[in-house]
Amino acid sequence: MISIAILGFGTVGSGVLEVLRRSAFSIERRAGQPIDVKYICDIRDFSAHPDAPLFVNNIDAILGDPEVRVVVETIGGLKPAYFYVKSALESGRHVVTSNKELVATHGAELLSIARQKGVCFLFEASVGGGTPIITPMHQCLAANVISGIAGIVNGTTNFMLTKMARENMDFEAALRLAQSLGYAETIDPSADVDGIDAQRKISILASLAFGRHFFPQNVPTRGIRDISVKDIALAARQNAAVRLIAWARRTPDGGAALAVEPMLVPRTNQLAGVEDVFNAVLVQGDMLGDVVFYGKGAGKLPTASAVVADVIDAVKNGVKIHDSLFWQESAPIEGVYADNTPHDYYVRLANATELVARDLFGQSLELLDLSDGEAAFTLRGITAARLAQLCARARKASVRVGSTLKWMAQ
Amino acid sequence: MISIAILGFGTVGSGVLEVLRRSAFSIERRAGQPIDVKYICDIRDFSAHPDAPLFVNNIDAILGDPEVRVVVETIGGLKPAYFYVKSALESGRHVVTSNKELVATHGAELLSIARQKGVCFLFEASVGGGTPIITPMHQCLAANVISGIAGIVNGTTNFMLTKMARENMDFEAALRLAQSLGYAETIDPSADVDGIDAQRKISILASLAFGRHFFPQNVPTRGIRDISVKDIALAARQNAAVRLIAWARRTPDGGAALAVEPMLVPRTNQLAGVEDVFNAVLVQGDMLGDVVFYGKGAGKLPTASAVVADVIDAVKNGVKIHDSLFWQESAPIEGVYADNTPHDYYVRLANATELVARDLFGQSLELLDLSDGEAAFTLRGITAARLAQLCARARKASVRVGSTLKWMAQ
Repeated sequence: MISIAILGFGTVGSGVLEVLRRSAFSIERRAGQPIDVKYICDIRDFSAHPDAPLFVNNIDAILGDPEVRVVVETIGGLKPAYFYVKSALESGRHVVTSNKELVATHGAELLSIARQKGVCFLFEASVGGGTPIITPMHQCLAANVISGIAGIVNGTTNFMLTKMARENMDFEAALRLAQSLGYAETIDPSADVDGIDAQRKISILASLAFGRHFFPQNVPTRGIRDISVKDIALAARQNAAVRLIAWARRTPDGGAALAVEPMLVPRTNQLAGVEDVFNAVLVQGDMLGDVVFYGKGAGKLPTASAVVADVIDAVKNGVKIHDSLFWQESAPIEGVYADNTPHDYYVRLANATELVARDLFGQSLELLDLSDGEAAFTLRGITAARLAQLCARARKASVRVGSTLKWMAQ
Repeated sequence: MISIAILGFGTVGSGVLEVLRRSAFSIERRAGQPIDVKYICDIRDFSAHPDAPLFVNNIDAILGDPEVRVVVETIGGLKPAYFYVKSALESGRHVVTSNKELVATHGAELLSIARQKGVCFLFEASVGGGTPIITPMHQCLAANVISGIAGIVNGTTNFMLTKMARENMDFEAALRLAQSLGYAETIDPSADVDGIDAQRKISILASLAFGRHFFPQNVPTRGIRDISVKDIALAARQNAAVRLIAWARRTPDGGAALAVEPMLVPRTNQLAGVEDVFNAVLVQGDMLGDVVFYGKGAGKLPTASAVVADVIDAVKNGVKIHDSLFWQESAPIEGVYADNTPHDYYVRLANATELVARDLFGQSLELLDLSDGEAAFTLRGITAARLAQLCARARKASVRVGSTLKWMAQ
C-alpha cells in the first residue's frame, strides 16, 4: 500500500479523494497496489467531516512520516504551496500538483530539485484540467521538434465569448452569467477575463516545448474586456470567431515569441469550433504536423482524475520515464517575449468617421463597417509595434480604439 | 548505442529511417543513447539504395544478432508480419508496429507473449497515424472507466465526404480524386470506402478501452458507397454532417456494442467539424467527461514519428510502464457486437412516393424531402434490427433503399 497526502481540501483536493475512493479497484489494479490517503492538510476546520482524523493543519506531520511517498498539492497560489512543494521534493517525495501559478513561476527550479532527489514532479492537471495535454505533448516531443503551440486554455472566457456570439450578450452580462454559474470569481474575475490564467498556462506549455523556463510576467497579455458584440458579429461576417488565444512560437533567431490575446480565428481552423467551457491546444511538430487536444478545461472530477493519473504514474514508474519532462532554468527578461512579424489586424475605432480612420491608419485600410459612430476595418501585414504606434496616434487625436484583433493563420 | 531493425521499407518504414536520421540529436538526448538502424528487411531489391548494406530479405539475420533490441514492423498485413512479430517477441525483443490489421487480429496474443517475455509490444501508429491516441487513452484509463469511444479514423473517406459536401462531387468522382492523390488504393479501394480500415482501428481502441479482445470480423461495418450528394445536402439542412463513424460503447448488460457506419453528426458535436484527411477520436471517461484527440490521420513522417516515439519509449522504459497497455484474450463471437438500443434514423428511398414511404415505414415518419422520385425522411427511436426489417420489406416491394443514416448524439 502507498500512502499519500493531499495538501488543500478545496474543489480539486476533495475531488482527488473522491476519485481515489470511487475508482479504488481499477486504480489498485493499475498502480499495482492500493493508494491510501493518510493525511489531508488544510488550515480550515474540518472537524465535522467524516474524514476528520485525516486532517492536519500544516505539513510537518506529513514530512515527518516516512510512509508518505507522494504529496498532492491542490492549494493553489504560491504561499504556502511553493514552500510545501519544495520541502516535499527535498525530503525525497514525489509531488503531483494542479497549481499552474506554481509551475509557471517556479517550475524549472522544482523540476531541478526533483531530478537531484530522484523523484517526480508532475503537473498534468495544471493545463487543460482533465484533458491530457502535458503527457501527449511530452510524448510528441520524443520524435518531434515543436515549432508552435496555440490554444484556448481558459474555459471561462471561452464560455463568455460563446454566449456573446450566440445570445448577443454584452461583456458585462456574460461576465455576470459566468460568475453566477461559478465559472468566474465574483470578487475579482481578473485572472480569467484579463488573461492571467491563460498567461500561466502558455508559460508552462512553452517551457515544456522549448526546453527552458518562460516567465508569465514576460508574456504580453490582453484579455477580452475590449471585445464587443459588434466585433463578434463582424468576425462572423468574415467567417471567423473571436477566441482568447494563448500562443507560443519559435522565432527565426532561435528565440521564442509568446502572447495571450483575443484573435480572429478563421472557421477553417479547428480552434474556431471550440465553444463553451471547452479547451483545445494545437501543437505543431516538424514531423507530426498539427495535432489538437480537446476537452473540458475544468471541473472537479476531470481535474482530479488527471491528478490521480499522475499519482499512479509516480507510484508505478518513479522518475525513470519523466526525465525528459524537464526544462532548464532561465532568467526573466526585461520587457516581453515579443512578436516582430507582420500580421493582418482587425481594428474598431469607437468614435471615428471613414475619413478620420483613413487619415490615422492609412488609405490602404479595408473598411468593414461604419455604424453607431464606429469604424471597423482590416489592416494587412503590419507588426504589433507599428499597430501600437498607430493606436497611440489615434488616442492622441482623441479617437478611442475600441478593439484590435490579430488574424490567426488558417 | 541501441541497434534496431526495420521490417518493411515502404512508406512508413522508410519514414522511420528518415525521422531517426533527421532528428538523431534530439532522439539520442531523449532515449539516453543513439538509436542505430542495423538491418532493414524487405524482399524487394534495394541494391542501388545508399543504405544497400543494411538490407536483408528475411528475418533470420536479425533474430540471430543479439545486438538488435527493438524490431520495427511496418510491412502491413498478416503474412509474414504476424510470424515475424511473434518470433521477434519470443526471442525477447521489443516490437513496435504501425500494422493495424495485425494488432486488431492478434493483439491479445502478441501482448500476452510480450508480457511473458518481459518486453514491449507498442502500436501507437496503428490508429490515427501520427496523432497520439493510444498513449493518451491509456493515460486516461489510469483514473477513468471509459464508457464510449467515437471516432473518425479513416482519412480517405473523410476527405471524400468533405469533397462531396463542399464541391457537390458524387461518390465516384470523389473516389477518383482520392485515388489520384494517393489516398485510396487504385486497384481495390475497399479497405477505405467499405470501412474495413476503420473496423480494424475501432477493434483496437475498444480492446484497449474495455480490456478484452474485440475481433474486426464481429464489428458490423458499412462504408460510404451509399452516400449521395443529396444525403449530405439534406444533412446540412438539418445542421448535421455525414461522417463515417467508428464507435464502441459499453452496454448495460456488461457487454459492448461496436460498429462502423456513416452517421449524421450534429454540427454541435466536435466530430462534425473534422474535415479533409483529419482524424479525431472522442473518448468518454466517467471522471473525465469528453476528450477529443485530433490530427492528420496519415502521412509518412507523422506516422513514422509515432513509431519512433514508441521505439524511444521501449528503449528507455522497457516493459514497466506498459504493463497496463494490455487486454485479455477472448473468443470471436457468432454474429456481431450488436447495438439493441433505439436511435433516430434518416432514410432515403431511391424510388418512392410519400404514400409508399408512409405505407412501408409507418405514418409517423417525418418527411424531409421529395424530389427526383426519391423520398427522404426521419424515423424516431427505432432499433437497428427493426429498421433492417422495414428495409427488407421495402426491398420486397421493389422499393430501393438509397441510404440509412443513424443520428449521432450531440
